[in-house]
Amino acid sequence: MVTISVDAMGGDHGPSVLIPGAAISLERHPELKFIFYGKEKDVQPEIDKFPKLKAASKFVHCDVSVRMDDKPSQALRQGRWKSSMWKAIEAVKTGEADVCVSAGNTGALMAMSRFCLRTMADIERPAIAAIWPTLRGESIVLDVGATIGADAQQLVDFSVMGAAMARAMIENPKPTVGLLNVGVEEIKGQEEVKEAGRLLRDADLPTLEYHGFVEGDDLGKGTVDVVVTEGFSGNIALKTAEGTARQIGEYLRAAMGHSFMSRIGYLFARSAFKRLGEKMDPRKVNGGVFLGLNGVVIKSHGGTDSEGFAAALDMGHDMVRNELQSKIDIDIKKFHTRQGRSRSANSASEQSENKSEK
Amino acid sequence: MVTISVDAMGGDHGPSVLIPGAAISLERHPELKFIFYGKEKDVQPEIDKFPKLKAASKFVHCDVSVRMDDKPSQALRQGRWKSSMWKAIEAVKTGEADVCVSAGNTGALMAMSRFCLRTMADIERPAIAAIWPTLRGESIVLDVGATIGADAQQLVDFSVMGAAMARAMIENPKPTVGLLNVGVEEIKGQEEVKEAGRLLRDADLPTLEYHGFVEGDDLGKGTVDVVVTEGFSGNIALKTAEGTARQIGEYLRAAMGHSFMSRIGYLFARSAFKRLGEKMDPRKVNGGVFLGLNGVVIKSHGGTDSEGFAAALDMGHDMVRNELQSKIDIDIKKFHTRQGRSRSANSASEQSENKSEK
Repeated sequence: MVTISVDAMGGDHGPSVLIPGAAISLERHPELKFIFYGKEKDVQPEIDKFPKLKAASKFVHCDVSVRMDDKPSQALRQGRWKSSMWKAIEAVKTGEADVCVSAGNTGALMAMSRFCLRTMADIERPAIAAIWPTLRGESIVLDVGATIGADAQQLVDFSVMGAAMARAMIENPKPTVGLLNVGVEEIKGQEEVKEAGRLLRDADLPTLEYHGFVEGDDLGKGTVDVVVTEGFSGNIALKTAEGTARQIGEYLRAAMGHSFMSRIGYLFARSAFKRLGEKMDPRKVNGGVFLGLNGVVIKSHGGTDSEGFAAALDMGHDMVRNELQSKIDIDIKKFHTRQGRSRSANSASEQSENKSEK
Repeated sequence: MVTISVDAMGGDHGPSVLIPGAAISLERHPELKFIFYGKEKDVQPEIDKFPKLKAASKFVHCDVSVRMDDKPSQALRQGRWKSSMWKAIEAVKTGEADVCVSAGNTGALMAMSRFCLRTMADIERPAIAAIWPTLRGESIVLDVGATIGADAQQLVDFSVMGAAMARAMIENPKPTVGLLNVGVEEIKGQEEVKEAGRLLRDADLPTLEYHGFVEGDDLGKGTVDVVVTEGFSGNIALKTAEGTARQIGEYLRAAMGHSFMSRIGYLFARSAFKRLGEKMDPRKVNGGVFLGLNGVVIKSHGGTDSEGFAAALDMGHDMVRNELQSKIDIDIKKFHTRQGRSRSANSASEQSENKSEK
């Protein structure tokens, strides 16, 4: 059994899209249980439409919901302790749920997740990991925007966490990891990136294979399983790729509608275009995973439809099934102990304090 | 008359591709003159094949040429004063040529250009500006990799230079400028970017319209005429977009070849695909422009063919015709004088020193 707590008020379209998404995911994973948080008058009627889902879920009414355009500080001020988003996150903290999924606004979700779940004892900064479709399959890219900037140690921690996520996703005990960098040989990158490269090479970790630096065009090639960078450049890379895909989609549409012949061609090649559309479908890989907190939170695109939200829920299911959180916990502790910088191993008192907070 | 100095040994394919490229560009701009630098035995026979080009060009033999995999420091050590790349750049310094075009390696070309031409009196760091195809036409993106990091003043200088280039390229006396940033409201970007935004807003320049922050997906949309960022994220955005375009091209090829029907469809829609191919053709916009030096240097892709190299030469022609260098010079001086930080205006002695160096 895997229990997912859902902020049913999140996203551009709210419960009318999210609840049917849960019903789709439940069909695929009958062992799923849901706890939905939101306004009763909006959410309950949607749940009532899906008897199987209703049987597998619990509903908790919340008066407050975080708006898509709330600033993180505003969301925290108004929504802490009581909003549907907060409650969904808190369910992971209390152990009622195994993972939280929300289509709400990213900044608010990250701020509340940090505040409620706290970063893991050995982690200074959380990261948002995105699944990136590549010519070789899928890669994981982090951080795509949790924080701005990262020092070498933080980049190395991102690498360890990203590799743990890759192992929870793909059948590869030792995923390859690359650090995102620029190509010009001697100005090659920020000092932090160079230093992180040295640390990863020296560490020679059993849980990942350090590949070296990769460049922006290696993302689409799928050169490595995990691409690590700080949140500013990661966010820009992610949005640039999304924008480029949309741009080419526009060109293609314009080109195919241009002449009578091309329109006939389109009819013949319709199934090919359908395949292409599927390849490029952002719903298939909908879900940014927050790593480095005491619990897993998954962010779905705000503008997603039910199919896309189901994909985010599926991912939540897989991350729990494949024990993402404990993988990260074990890997980070081992690594930091080797480096002599484990906070959790060195200060047992601090850790028990952390736990008693729960 | 516009004279272009060409490092005829640059690029993956050398003079056999570059010289025919010059012949193509000469057809389009009969007022062009060329000075080619390179090894006589390699270059002269190529020039001899094009009588018109031969008549419009001068050839200078150089023993040394910079290799595509030379490190910038290595290239400087071995190629300074004497390589074909150095000589081509130096021709701009001495005034023999109006602009230098090279398909040689970017790091070496930038290092030599900085060493030979020096940065403009009022500019601390040069930038590489790329032409970015968008849904609205073309935008300019800088810096795509001249240096790593930039403070607020440098980002503002990039904005002024980028706008000058936009005015030299498009018929718009006041191009729009956006600062590349990430979308999450309150962590919104590096301090430098925020500060640069404030400076641009306060400056209220007559030569550009400051639009505000833009995100990665605004690049393909063409939201603004000029997108400004520091070299690390700019380089990653550029290569990510290139990689994504190639990736989708691969998907499309695979999808169209998948079935008999889709292959028939392809035949009908051939002209549409040709149009799409042209839209996505990187040769059309081949050329990164080095801004902020005492002279314009244009970098062509190393792997380009003759058509692509001709596009880089065309761009060189246009930049000279439209007085890019003096536009930058005037705009930067005016702006710095208003800010009270003009080095060229404040210290005439320093500037004359700079000149006597020539």
